[in-house]
Amino acid sequence: MNKLIFNPIALRGFVEEMFAYFGIPSEDCKLAADVLAYSDEHGIDSHGVARLITYYDLLKVGRINIHPKLKIIREKGSVATIDGDNGLGLIIGPKCNEIAMDKAEIHGSGWVSVCNTNHYGAAGYYPVKALERDLIGLSLTNTTKGVVPFGGREKMLGTNPIAIAFPSGQEPPMVIDMATSTVAYGKVEIADRQQKPVPIGWCLDKDGQPTVDPLAMINDGALLPLGSDIEGSGHKGYCLAAMVDVLSAVLSGANWGPFAVPFAIRSDGQPITQVGKGIGHFFGAWDITGFQDLEVFKKSMDAWIRVMRETPPLEGTPRVLIPGDPEREAYGVRMKDGIPLDGIVWESICKIAKETKIPLPSPQ
Amino acid sequence: MNKLIFNPIALRGFVEEMFAYFGIPSEDCKLAADVLAYSDEHGIDSHGVARLITYYDLLKVGRINIHPKLKIIREKGSVATIDGDNGLGLIIGPKCNEIAMDKAEIHGSGWVSVCNTNHYGAAGYYPVKALERDLIGLSLTNTTKGVVPFGGREKMLGTNPIAIAFPSGQEPPMVIDMATSTVAYGKVEIADRQQKPVPIGWCLDKDGQPTVDPLAMINDGALLPLGSDIEGSGHKGYCLAAMVDVLSAVLSGANWGPFAVPFAIRSDGQPITQVGKGIGHFFGAWDITGFQDLEVFKKSMDAWIRVMRETPPLEGTPRVLIPGDPEREAYGVRMKDGIPLDGIVWESICKIAKETKIPLPSPQ
Repeated sequence: MNKLIFNPIALRGFVEEMFAYFGIPSEDCKLAADVLAYSDEHGIDSHGVARLITYYDLLKVGRINIHPKLKIIREKGSVATIDGDNGLGLIIGPKCNEIAMDKAEIHGSGWVSVCNTNHYGAAGYYPVKALERDLIGLSLTNTTKGVVPFGGREKMLGTNPIAIAFPSGQEPPMVIDMATSTVAYGKVEIADRQQKPVPIGWCLDKDGQPTVDPLAMINDGALLPLGSDIEGSGHKGYCLAAMVDVLSAVLSGANWGPFAVPFAIRSDGQPITQVGKGIGHFFGAWDITGFQDLEVFKKSMDAWIRVMRETPPLEGTPRVLIPGDPEREAYGVRMKDGIPLDGIVWESICKIAKETKIPLPSPQ
Repeated sequence: MNKLIFNPIALRGFVEEMFAYFGIPSEDCKLAADVLAYSDEHGIDSHGVARLITYYDLLKVGRINIHPKLKIIREKGSVATIDGDNGLGLIIGPKCNEIAMDKAEIHGSGWVSVCNTNHYGAAGYYPVKALERDLIGLSLTNTTKGVVPFGGREKMLGTNPIAIAFPSGQEPPMVIDMATSTVAYGKVEIADRQQKPVPIGWCLDKDGQPTVDPLAMINDGALLPLGSDIEGSGHKGYCLAAMVDVLSAVLSGANWGPFAVPFAIRSDGQPITQVGKGIGHFFGAWDITGFQDLEVFKKSMDAWIRVMRETPPLEGTPRVLIPGDPEREAYGVRMKDGIPLDGIVWESICKIAKETKIPLPSPQ
């Protein structure tokens, strides 16, 4: 595929200007651009500017509140529920994450469940912020339905990611960010664009039959939960997706399960039934110093990381990685060489530039 | 296989007497018996009296402190680290879980990381206790190495389970209890006893090759993390096991990763290197009322459960289950019909009875 390469700062600038175009306050534009840039800069291509057109569409039709006022609905010491006032998840998310981290510094841990919010970018962005404050960070979100519950043949749950990050000392931190489906939807899209089959265990077709055809999943099929089938313990991925759904959406009063509001306005099957407000996020942080001397913890993390790296690798595998390694490697390359964008993503950016008259970032 | 059937109360009585035989205080014996009974009564055969002989062996050689004094090493509001003073995990676990729940009622959430402890039974026991107090409960523990990190061919992590439970209203609660390996070790043992092959994706042999032979895993092979291989996203199971290991053991100062102390004294390869004290647990609880009206939450959980149950099932699947259903079903049967024990488990109980002169429970 043809890819154009862009300077990370130029891309950020374009994203900020797009949000500003809709009257979003400057500080909030910076925040939203920072969340999207995290994905592009770390190689998570599905969650960066590839999704800018969707945010653009939603803002254009007035589906998003550009001046949301966060409201704490309930609170008790280390925990709270916040109504995101239908703001951009890219703005509500970072602010609620801050509140969870502030609580952790006061109470030893902090937990914020959020309703009435929208898609918040890559889940991994949030716990990585906690690392700056020497906290353990956690973020969960429910998402539009795309995954069957184990044993079912209709999609009822989202890819509901789990992200958690642990600080370290001299070694790089451990950063986990994983969909609770076997694969994220983006991987199926990529296979479809490349016209390649996918492994059995990723997808069902619209009749609930296992399929290797990515298009059969995209056309009203479904993803399978992590573990895929009975032999692979697919019930475990379902358990994890259920846990994320309850903590993010049932607990906060957002739309849960199949009622989660679709991200894209062009999606088929906007659920008519609403059981809550918007979608839901869940942010958490633990203050390490409440458990352990910080330097001792960091040294132990360094030792953990070194011991795991030294595991003899499987035949054909260069070495055992630490969670976060692939994203760190991508970051190193992209901040030096620039960020490659798919033709289809570039076209969507050109469309936004044309309609808004924001100057296009120039390819390198 | 020949199975004898036992009255649940008679089994509990035998277990209590066995712990009392070693001089463990009466209240602690009741607690330990309650944890083991939870497994036998809920069909989790690997974690109940099947393991009594191992606790017996450990107590007999004086490996366990029968009068442990729990010590809070560090504390900050909602969080604490506790040194279990090398007590039985079956006694330290419930007590530390109580402390996490007490904290949740004061601070909105409570988190206790525990070092210097031993095997604590089924992880699911602990969050189920939280349900009695209308809390969301969570428990994690690291365990003896048995699982490869993704891409590795030597076991470096335990089956490190995640258990979490959510209260509901009229419907039964959601109870999740899952090893972060594709399957728990017990499933491989069962296949071996039945001389049946296991699916590819469960095990590696001692050379790091995928194997269908359960004995090839048992003889110095290893389990694979949930997701198994690259196509199944085995890196995700590794991420989850790493998360459990860090929260339970690195955070508390216990032995982490490959250094986790083996449960059975007969195990080969007692790690010589120690990087902390004992193994580690992690208990947590959230007070729902800090987030949401309790009755609203319970009604939403009921609705969630009903909606998932109504998912059209896959061909050949009777219906979609809710996490906790299989254990509830087993409980219903066993509390009526009695608890079946394998011949090998019965033999181990006879051995204990003979050595201690505790009267054997009579089969029904």
